[in-house]
Amino acid sequence: MQQEGFTIWITGLPGAGKSSLAGAVAAALSGRGFAVEVIDSGKLRASLLGNALGFSRHERHTNNLQHAFAAKMLSRNGVIPVVAAVSPYRATRRAIREALGTFVEVHAATEKAVCIDRDTKGLWARALAGEVQSFTGVDDPYEAPQEPEVRLDLGTLSPQEGAAEVLRALETLGYLARRPDAEDPPDIDAIASQL
Amino acid sequence: MQQEGFTIWITGLPGAGKSSLAGAVAAALSGRGFAVEVIDSGKLRASLLGNALGFSRHERHTNNLQHAFAAKMLSRNGVIPVVAAVSPYRATRRAIREALGTFVEVHAATEKAVCIDRDTKGLWARALAGEVQSFTGVDDPYEAPQEPEVRLDLGTLSPQEGAAEVLRALETLGYLARRPDAEDPPDIDAIASQL
Repeated sequence: MQQEGFTIWITGLPGAGKSSLAGAVAAALSGRGFAVEVIDSGKLRASLLGNALGFSRHERHTNNLQHAFAAKMLSRNGVIPVVAAVSPYRATRRAIREALGTFVEVHAATEKAVCIDRDTKGLWARALAGEVQSFTGVDDPYEAPQEPEVRLDLGTLSPQEGAAEVLRALETLGYLARRPDAEDPPDIDAIASQL
Repeated sequence: MQQEGFTIWITGLPGAGKSSLAGAVAAALSGRGFAVEVIDSGKLRASLLGNALGFSRHERHTNNLQHAFAAKMLSRNGVIPVVAAVSPYRATRRAIREALGTFVEVHAATEKAVCIDRDTKGLWARALAGEVQSFTGVDDPYEAPQEPEVRLDLGTLSPQEGAAEVLRALETLGYLARRPDAEDPPDIDAIASQL
């Protein structure tokens, strides 16, 4: 399916709910008939890259750019990329925005205290104990987006509620052709009148 | 356009003619109506990555894996990825073959003397003079494929001739549905008999 290309880029602290939101956005877009690919930086590090990639400023930057490159190739072939990556540096995200042109930045702005409290992977505890270095939010900075297209507090919104907000933003931006909502029942009277 | 997914992976020494071959293969496949994307490691390093990525064993390995990840997402969405990358390590290529499943390894087996003689980017001269470190073929190893799907000497074949061999291999492997060759003239008699 061909459509105007754009990239959804979810940035935020570790544990902010980026992966869950990416999954919910992908499901919502698939449900509308779009081709979607999730580029989950954390899962990619843990699987294909085999934790071979480190967390220096330099490695984070090049890794984010690699995702952007993949996203660009997907989007120009009619597939919507949904990137979930801490992507903590403003300069990196700015470079990617310029490279991609159509860039929907979604800030998973869950409060740090909530991320620490959830700590789904136990990484915050280890970082705060000094056992993990270069951890975003502890000893590595998170430079929050100043004007993201969407900002969501995933401490109060469910992934599905967040995804609904992302899709509304996409429609407002004109990136999604408006389609009959799959939730809307068919208009039986209108159909019957044509029989 | 949906078709069975596969990845064309061109490996070889610097200056072996990988980029030119990738361009010719992409043109030939586009001419047959396939969606194609070239992932040119050298061009990517020089543009988007801004030469930020180095040439350590580790960086080469993770960079190749990033290309494989992008290729996988493209191929499962009906786009044929054509990767051109020195990708000098056998273990890396083996890992990628396993991750991708359908992997067409093309060894650009141009003789080293020819690569040095062409030296299109002037890099061989600098590496041989000791001005560039970690250069494949000089002070970093190139581990040639033992059983590539295709092996081409691009010192004697043109990119177009090489591309024709790659396409023949793809057909033999069953990755391309046989189509009327665009070179074949239409059968006027057969058409006329149906008028």
